[in-house]
Amino acid sequence: MEGMKKLNTSPISGMQELLPLEQAMFNKYKTEIREVFLRHGFLEIETPMIEREEILFAKAGGETEKQIYKVVKTEETAKDADQALRFDHTVPLARYVAEHESDLAFPFRVTQIGRNFRGERAQKGRFREFYQCDIDVVGRNNLPIEYDAEVIATLFEALRRLKLPKILVRVSNRKILSGFLEGVNLNHLSAEIFSIIDHAEKVPKEVTNEKLRALGIGDDFVKLVEKFINLSGEFSEVRDKLEKLGIESEKFNKGIEELGRVFGLLEKLGLAGSVVADMKIVRGLDYYTGTVFETVLEDYRQIGSICSGGRYDNLAELYTDQVLPGVGGSIGLTRLFFLMNEFGLNKEEIEKPVEIAIIPFSEEQIPICLELAQKYRGQEKKVDVVLTDKKLGDKLKYAAKVARFGMVVGENEVETGEYKLKDFETGEEIPA
Amino acid sequence: MEGMKKLNTSPISGMQELLPLEQAMFNKYKTEIREVFLRHGFLEIETPMIEREEILFAKAGGETEKQIYKVVKTEETAKDADQALRFDHTVPLARYVAEHESDLAFPFRVTQIGRNFRGERAQKGRFREFYQCDIDVVGRNNLPIEYDAEVIATLFEALRRLKLPKILVRVSNRKILSGFLEGVNLNHLSAEIFSIIDHAEKVPKEVTNEKLRALGIGDDFVKLVEKFINLSGEFSEVRDKLEKLGIESEKFNKGIEELGRVFGLLEKLGLAGSVVADMKIVRGLDYYTGTVFETVLEDYRQIGSICSGGRYDNLAELYTDQVLPGVGGSIGLTRLFFLMNEFGLNKEEIEKPVEIAIIPFSEEQIPICLELAQKYRGQEKKVDVVLTDKKLGDKLKYAAKVARFGMVVGENEVETGEYKLKDFETGEEIPA
Repeated sequence: MEGMKKLNTSPISGMQELLPLEQAMFNKYKTEIREVFLRHGFLEIETPMIEREEILFAKAGGETEKQIYKVVKTEETAKDADQALRFDHTVPLARYVAEHESDLAFPFRVTQIGRNFRGERAQKGRFREFYQCDIDVVGRNNLPIEYDAEVIATLFEALRRLKLPKILVRVSNRKILSGFLEGVNLNHLSAEIFSIIDHAEKVPKEVTNEKLRALGIGDDFVKLVEKFINLSGEFSEVRDKLEKLGIESEKFNKGIEELGRVFGLLEKLGLAGSVVADMKIVRGLDYYTGTVFETVLEDYRQIGSICSGGRYDNLAELYTDQVLPGVGGSIGLTRLFFLMNEFGLNKEEIEKPVEIAIIPFSEEQIPICLELAQKYRGQEKKVDVVLTDKKLGDKLKYAAKVARFGMVVGENEVETGEYKLKDFETGEEIPA
Repeated sequence: MEGMKKLNTSPISGMQELLPLEQAMFNKYKTEIREVFLRHGFLEIETPMIEREEILFAKAGGETEKQIYKVVKTEETAKDADQALRFDHTVPLARYVAEHESDLAFPFRVTQIGRNFRGERAQKGRFREFYQCDIDVVGRNNLPIEYDAEVIATLFEALRRLKLPKILVRVSNRKILSGFLEGVNLNHLSAEIFSIIDHAEKVPKEVTNEKLRALGIGDDFVKLVEKFINLSGEFSEVRDKLEKLGIESEKFNKGIEELGRVFGLLEKLGLAGSVVADMKIVRGLDYYTGTVFETVLEDYRQIGSICSGGRYDNLAELYTDQVLPGVGGSIGLTRLFFLMNEFGLNKEEIEKPVEIAIIPFSEEQIPICLELAQKYRGQEKKVDVVLTDKKLGDKLKYAAKVARFGMVVGENEVETGEYKLKDFETGEEIPA
């Protein structure tokens, strides 16, 4: 019998709330990702969820700014600066690095796994509170391009661990597109064109061309842009085709060279079949300046990008005059988990969180059951002792819900010292 | 050279922000605690950090209510109910259990480890954002007293794993105090007396007696209360002394009986020397109805309680008409971690987060270094590859900061295939 509700007890719309078995699965994924990041030498940090508005609004801009949750100060914190909830990990990281610069070792390999907040319109699969799993490498004054490959390879390995179907990383370099526009004398329209290309996959080709023409671009150039953005595939092929476009721009060439070095290392790292050069990849955020990447599941492209990032020239320019170039990327775990369930991609076995549920046959066996539990816990096992005064059948029903094995302890078992584990999945009984 | 700040980049006052090595230590403690909870059969859940104000204010009351951070809705969430940040795990748990009751197995052993928020006055060692590590067992309609012992033993084991100096759990049962007041006909003053006893340790004895007298209590009774609250020690001794007080109250006797059962089990669970009955333990929160406990470090009593909790008759009475009795407790990890550092109680070795930093002698060795890194990562090792174009000395300096071992890879090493690990702590070199 379920109780009558006195208040609305559902979580606020847009907030993920999971049942224990789902939560265990979610946490398993989070742990897998974290362990991959740590194995790749990333150091964990945590920043507060509440930041000064000044810090957040300095960097937000556009849509994001409207989605920031402001926090009302209490009587006792009234003297504080105005505050709001962080909307990503990058802004707090910039503040953190500016604040603790003299205590950090550079290049700073850093990971942040935690919740962020955006007050967006409610929509299926969009979350207002969501886990992001970020990695970044932040250099002081400079940061070699090799780190771009390390970041991509680390994120790829983390996704691979989730047993996702064929993962494809699409990589480009913003210098190529910038240089291309420079070369065809369209760089005065680069903001507009970047945005059109960024949306090109979501609309029919004609719409993209129409938008380009609306900028007053001649048909020849529209065709050239179309040709450019459709370049995708193995790096060497894309490079050859890019070179045939006849663009004269140092930036363009520099972009190709950088992309080539990143691909060279990615191949060395075993990602050859899983990574393509793709000129449609732009990443809307204007702080990216070099490598940019998005990740899709090849057979589920409709899901969109599940992991993306790129290279930025100066992480914390709004907070400090120290030049801190970096490269980073992020897995949006809350959304990914939701989509994996939606599309049936959850290939991990659902494990019961408890290994053994020990069931005293009657009150008399409670002390010995607690002692047995201590013994198994000492062996790193997850053990529940069912202490309710219900009937044996009810206790077993409870045990089967939370645990893999059940162990009934009655007079007989205590006397003989022979305990048996019942496998709730197979029904088999085995000696404990 | 440190950069010049353009904005105030310190975290908001009252928010813990750690450097990477401190964070690694903090996370190690968090992991230890979590693993103990899981081994004791507690299931993990997470609730949103933002809740309806209605839910939070229904249960907060008093000081806490003034410390709740309200959240301003954004344009796109304007239609939502009024919202605020959670201030503990108990209120969201009550909502969670009321909401998901039909999907849960009872008794519901549940753990929540996460951040909560209280907008308190800034004060050293007081945090506005802080980790709480909670466990609770929630029953439906009833919950045997044995679970009280399980909860205490689980929390004790978690604290023990942190290698803290002598831990002492002080346990009482609110029914004893309630029954005592009933027996001496002072139950009409129970709220006031509970509060006086709750503060008795923070003031001189005379102040406590003065406060009692101010309630209009006669000298004989003041003496009796004084005698009562000073009862502490081994359970059997305290029980004998309680019985000699000559109180006639069923509740009083019931409290003693419950406390006796809890102690009986705690002794079975090996806590005999670490747990005392102590009539000064009341716990201010009025939802406790039976077992109450606090935990101190015997040689650092000035730190106050580091873990506390108790039994409540009805967790979610404000949200549902289903009766959900429970017992739970919480470790305030952020505060504990701060205090451990203050008092030099941090006995864990500070481990570098990275095991091996691989250092290419020159650019040429980068690819082989990345391959070596992959190999060691495949063996679950935490590996950094130092990809900067700095001098070897600078690379080694960086490596020594983040990693336990360094491995320089030059032409010679590649040729011979003989790699050496330099132990940065001892200076020794060993074959990899």
